[in-house]
Parts: sequence; structure tokens; C-alpha cells
Amino acid sequence: MAKVIVVGGVAGGATAASQLRRLNQEIDITIYEKDRDISFANCGLPYHIGGEVDERRKLIAATPESFNEKDVSVFTYHEVVGVNTDKQFVTVKNMTTGEEFNDTYDYLILSPGGRARVVPGLENVEEAFALHNIEDMDRIMEYIDENKIQEAVVVGTGFIGMEMAENLRLRDIGVTVVHRNENIYGHIEADVVAVLHQEMEKHGIDLKLNAEVERYRDGYVYLTNNEKVKAPLVIQGIGLNPNTEFLKDSGIKMTGRGLIPVNEYGQTNVKNVYSLGDVMETRYLHVPEQPANIKLAWPAHRIAYVIANHIHGEYNVKFEGLLGTNIMRFFDYEVGSVGIPQETVRNYEHFVIDHQQNFKAGYMEGASKIKIKIYVAHDGTILRASVISKSGVDKRLDTLAAHIRMGGKAQDLVNVEVAYSPPFSSPKSFLNMVGYKTIEEMKKRGLM
Amino acid sequence: MAKVIVVGGVAGGATAASQLRRLNQEIDITIYEKDRDISFANCGLPYHIGGEVDERRKLIAATPESFNEKDVSVFTYHEVVGVNTDKQFVTVKNMTTGEEFNDTYDYLILSPGGRARVVPGLENVEEAFALHNIEDMDRIMEYIDENKIQEAVVVGTGFIGMEMAENLRLRDIGVTVVHRNENIYGHIEADVVAVLHQEMEKHGIDLKLNAEVERYRDGYVYLTNNEKVKAPLVIQGIGLNPNTEFLKDSGIKMTGRGLIPVNEYGQTNVKNVYSLGDVMETRYLHVPEQPANIKLAWPAHRIAYVIANHIHGEYNVKFEGLLGTNIMRFFDYEVGSVGIPQETVRNYEHFVIDHQQNFKAGYMEGASKIKIKIYVAHDGTILRASVISKSGVDKRLDTLAAHIRMGGKAQDLVNVEVAYSPPFSSPKSFLNMVGYKTIEEMKKRGLM
Repeated sequence: MAKVIVVGGVAGGATAASQLRRLNQEIDITIYEKDRDISFANCGLPYHIGGEVDERRKLIAATPESFNEKDVSVFTYHEVVGVNTDKQFVTVKNMTTGEEFNDTYDYLILSPGGRARVVPGLENVEEAFALHNIEDMDRIMEYIDENKIQEAVVVGTGFIGMEMAENLRLRDIGVTVVHRNENIYGHIEADVVAVLHQEMEKHGIDLKLNAEVERYRDGYVYLTNNEKVKAPLVIQGIGLNPNTEFLKDSGIKMTGRGLIPVNEYGQTNVKNVYSLGDVMETRYLHVPEQPANIKLAWPAHRIAYVIANHIHGEYNVKFEGLLGTNIMRFFDYEVGSVGIPQETVRNYEHFVIDHQQNFKAGYMEGASKIKIKIYVAHDGTILRASVISKSGVDKRLDTLAAHIRMGGKAQDLVNVEVAYSPPFSSPKSFLNMVGYKTIEEMKKRGLM
Repeated sequence: MAKVIVVGGVAGGATAASQLRRLNQEIDITIYEKDRDISFANCGLPYHIGGEVDERRKLIAATPESFNEKDVSVFTYHEVVGVNTDKQFVTVKNMTTGEEFNDTYDYLILSPGGRARVVPGLENVEEAFALHNIEDMDRIMEYIDENKIQEAVVVGTGFIGMEMAENLRLRDIGVTVVHRNENIYGHIEADVVAVLHQEMEKHGIDLKLNAEVERYRDGYVYLTNNEKVKAPLVIQGIGLNPNTEFLKDSGIKMTGRGLIPVNEYGQTNVKNVYSLGDVMETRYLHVPEQPANIKLAWPAHRIAYVIANHIHGEYNVKFEGLLGTNIMRFFDYEVGSVGIPQETVRNYEHFVIDHQQNFKAGYMEGASKIKIKIYVAHDGTILRASVISKSGVDKRLDTLAAHIRMGGKAQDLVNVEVAYSPPFSSPKSFLNMVGYKTIEEMKKRGLM
């Protein structure tokens, strides 16, 4: 009987294990997870702190017990510390007893995820937390309650920083956000997210730009701009480092940043070793020469299915690459993007279309602007698009993603047929207008 | 100088005229409109009655004066009563003076639209109104105010019937809806829209099923089920008849129902004669042998652009056919469909997938179900899909439409990459799950 070891039991690993069990009742499956919990909804953690997720248990999709019922063995607080790909075994450390042991595999699925980076100057500061798993969430909520926290400092403005700023405010905790430059939520263009500065102000968030943490002392964060901010609680949201050090001598290929490249089946360079989740490096679907490391739930779930199928012997299920589709709600706004990163776009000849109109019929109560910035290569390939509005951003991003995935170019957007009625859009719809503008621009440039 | 005559100045005709003027500053353009107004937002009319469109002027996109400024001649209250396609002239009746005259054309654009059907038994009833243009809207609003209307009967449950029922309730007018069978909003499957019965009840609408109007007397509607309902105001929403009688002897091909078939350029069978809007019959994009008559704004606007380009000599702008994408909001619900009609689906071998899950992450406050019924041909072609939920229906329909338009099959839905964050969807997203179910079903049936 073939034996599968899964390293890491959160989104990617747990889903791969479930999918494989669904396909194959015989195969032996073991999950090693270094932390306390498996299979929880990481994306939901900030919303339980803010109260929009009312019950903690709703965040837990599966437990070791529920996996055991499906005949999947789960070992929590067990860290895989080494892999021998020649002899096909992993070395596991039982973190409770300190004991180490080896376990052999026929197939190895690596989903070790990352760990939150510590803000320089906040090392060993008790008041500073990251939010990466349920343990973190529990600790933060307990800490807030026990210390009757009324103000907090959030360092960084990625997903976690922004979502924590919002959710702390929703608990009526005063929030100061510290960001190292002027471009908050920096994976989206500064001019697109400019309105979020006002949104922060409107919701009572104090935004410190061009500032970094210098040190923490006596309940205050001292910033490089010589300000100090009262900070009985600090949330650090400056990104993740991949947990892949244990693979150093394994022969599994990694990038300089510690990411694991995989092919269309989720396979690494080593036979019978797969990888997924935050440590996976794949390709952009529409710009296939561009590597993609997208630390989001959708890719993890999709490639979990592909890996499960491949191990089960279904070789026609492939992963065709990513579009990096992402979205965040920030108070009254929605913002997101699809396509390659801003920085990468520069490597391709392109033109930019900026467009805005109302997200629904302009004569309807509550209508307001939706804005797009779209980068079009000279053949019409949509390299990237960023969208912001109070409503309807998810719809435009999903539609763009479906269009791009099936080979649609920017000039084809004129034909995107929308479900129109005044509460939803306009008959000359948003993406259609982007298509018309693209055609105009391409004609002007002699590209069509 | 070439001369263009446009018959009908509402959505289709007015847009064609504007687009043509934008492309071509020289060409002579004249619009004949038999009614009072041109270029207004028909779809917005119910929402001004309900108050969601606060200002009447917002519904008027252009006036004869604004068209004159663009050097387009507009004659309102001028009905085209005949067309001579041999000698290329139209006969126009000035409805104010009764005078008739001929006007020659090089190109003729037919956008005469339809007129609301009168409910049998309500002929010449002063209290009975249709809602087809701004004149109707003005009359209804005046009538409501002058007569301090507190209850109304709505006959029919198409777009107008449902939207008027909602908007009259939003004005706190008591509403009884009369429908001839049990399937309200009959262009969507009865089991999909079943929940709208409760939604009507919840919002105080009295629904009379399996009932038709027999007669009107002394302020009451008498129904075929022997009930009578107090009806100081009656709204008729039982569909449109095409205004194409004037084309009877023109040589322009029409269907038995009076619709005008067009090709991918919007051309009729007669040289230099185009047609669009509610009277146009085109094809379904993904099931091209199926004729499509979609009385919606999106197709009118799109083909207006195609026709304008064709007249201007741009022959590579084509109209590739429709998907019939539609949506309606009804109080707290959104419902719509994409693809060929229910009745037509029966002509194709297919299987049906019913799927439901939460429209956003299930652990989030306010999450509730989104349901789809999708008809898949044996090669995976998505023949039709209907979707209902309290949120996110427009997103799924638009995404499906983009997917289908670019050639995507039902089994490819597993790869539709969504913008995920808990307020918007799930990582195992709605359309992905439909794709997974499709693959399972196709395997079970030996289709893949």
C-alpha cells in the first residue's frame, strides 16, 4: 500500500489529504503539522477578532479527529526537520517530547507554509503579535480582553495589516498604522489606493507614512520619524518567510527566496515530491515566463486537487498557471488586482488604460465610481489590471480572470456580455468601455 | 453626402446615431421618433416611481436639442408608416399635423421597439397603465399623486411586473400581483424562483396565482378565479408586441412574430437596411442554430456600435451573437440567467447540475445560500444557467458569460480563478464546485 506524507496541515496540505482520500480509499496518508491546529480558515482570522465571524469554531474546517475518521493520521506539534529524497524518508521532531524519528514515504506533499516576519526592533517584545494561525488569534483576543486594550499599532499594510486595522476599529480600538513609505497596500498602484488614505481617516485610523519602527520601550513604539506612539498592542504585518529551511540538503530545488518551483502537476524537481501553498512557485497563466508565488487560498485549493489526482494516477488534471486574482474589503471599499505584479509589468511593452464610470446605473441612489488601471501588451494581452470601488470590484476581477484564462484580449472586452439591470451595472458596461478605449488606443498606435 | 435615417430614437436608435456621428462627422443623420421622448433610460423607469432614482432628469440621456448640437436631426411625434426599399425612402407621418411626407435614405436603421400588450379585459380602462416610456411613467406618477393611490394591481410577473410590484411597495402602496399560472417570473425555472413567493409575502404583496383578469368594473379587477380585487391603479406587464407592421410590404424579411432577423453586422435581408433593439432577431453565440430575441439594453447598445461601424465602412467589427444574460433585483434577492431559454434546452441532450453553497465564506456574518441550475450538453457546452441568491448573482452570471463567450465548457469551470477573500466568496468557489460536479457527472455518464 502506497504511503503519503503531508508536511503541513493547513489549507494546502489538509485539502490535498482530503482530496486524495476522496479519490483513493486505500492509500496510507499521514499529516505532520508543527503547530497546534490544522485545516483552519486563515483568511477568516481577522474577522473573528473584529466580530464579523461570531463563533470561533466556524473557523475550524477539520480536526485531527475528523481526519482520523477518514483514516488519515494527523500528528500536530510534529515538525518535519529533514527530508532524505534518495531513501524517501522524512525526519520528524515531536515538539512535545523533543524526540526525533524517521518515517518513509512513497509520495511526499510539502505544504509547510511560512512564518510571519518579525519587525526589526520588535524582537522579543511581549506586546507585539503576528496573526498567522488560530493560536495567534487566540493569544491576541485573550491579550486584548485581559489588558482591556484600547489602542494598537499596526505595522505594515498588506492584507493582514489592513484587515487588522479595520477589525480592531470595528472593536472600537484606536489604531495607528505605520507604513515605511507613502504607498499603502503596496501591491496595488498608489494612485488606485489613494482614496484609502481618506478611508482610514474617516474611520479614525492614524496613518504614519514614511516611518519604520526603531524600537519599543515602556509601552511605546518609537518611529524613525522621531514620533512615538502609545502601543499596548502591536500587530506586525510585514509578510512571511517560507518555512523551507529543512529542505536545504534534500535535493529539492528551491529559489533564492526559499520557494519551491513546481510544474503543472504540482511536482518539484524530485520524483514523488509535490509542493503547494505559500511556498509554491508556479507560473502566470497568461505570461508563462513569469514565475508566480501567490500566497492566497484559491491556488492552494486548486493545486491540492491536482496533486491528489496525480498521485492517484489521473494525469490529465493539470494546473494551468495563475492569474494572481486578489481582493480585499477595507471598510466601504473593495480593491484588488489580476495579473502579474506592478514591478514586472515594466518588463513588457504595454500601454495603460485608466477608466472610471459608475459601478451601477448612474441615476440610481448610491451610485459611485469604479476605477480600473489596466496594462495592455501590444498584442492586446491583459498583463495586469487593478480595480477599486465601493461595490462590484469582485465581479469585474472575476470576469476579467475568466476572460483572460480563456484567451480573451483587452480588445475583446467590448463583447463581454453583462447581466444588466440598473442596480448592477450599465448597458455600456464597465469592461466594455475598457475594451472600446483599448481599441481606440491600439488604432492610435497602429497596433490594429 | 450619404444620408442615414433612424426609425426610433430610444436606446438602440439613439445609440446608433451617436456612435455613427462619433465615427463620421460628415454623414447626414435623421431620427424619427413617434413618441415624445428620445434616448431615455427605460430600465430606470420603475426606480423613479419607487424613488431610488431621485431626479427625473437623470433618466434622460439625450434630448432632440443635444442631438441637434451634434448635427443630428431629430423629429419626435413623427411616425414612420412605410418603407420603400427599392427607391430607398420612408413615409413619415407628422402626428401633430397628420401630414405625411417621404424622406430618402442611403442607409436605414430600424429601431422601432415594441408596444406594451393590453391585458384582455382592460381595453380602454382609464385606471390601467403600461410602463414603456417616460410618458407612461409621468402619467402613472401623476395619477398616483392626484388620486392618492394606496393600492394597485400588477398583472404579469416579467421584468416590469416584478419591478413595479417592488417599487410600488417602496412607495408604501398595497400591491396585488396577478399571474396566470403558478410560475412567477416564468423565464426562470419555477424551483429557482420559488423563494420569491415568500419574498412577496414578506414584503406585503398579495399574490394571486392561476388567475387572469376577466373584466374591470367600478374600481375592481374581476379575476377568472372568481375573486375581485380593489384596483384604483392597474399596471399591465404582460410583454411587448413589435412595432413592425409598417414594414409589411417593404420586402424586409420578418418572422411570424414580426421580428427582424439580422446578420453579424446588424443587416437585414435588404441592402442598406439595418435593425436592432427589441425587434431584432439574432443568434445565440454558443448555440448558433437558436434564434435569439433579447429585449434588453446590452444587446441594443452593442449592436448599435456594430451598425455604426458597418455604415462607416469598418467591416471587421462584428456581433458574434448573444448569451441572453439577464438579471433582476427583487427586494432582498437577485435572480438571473444566461443562455438559451428553458423551453429550448429540451431540444438538446443534456444533464442538469443543481448546486448551492454560501455566496461568501460561510463563517461570515450575513452569509446565505446561492443556488444554480445549470444545463450541460454532452460535450460540456453550458446551454443555460439560472442563479439566485441575496448577493453575488451578477458576479456569477457575468463570469459565466465571459467564460462561455471565450469557448469555456462546464468542466473548465474548475479553473475559473476567483478574487477570494471571506467577504466575497470561498476558496473552493461556487463556479469551481459546479465544474467539479460536472466532471463527476460526465465521468459517471462516460462522457469524459
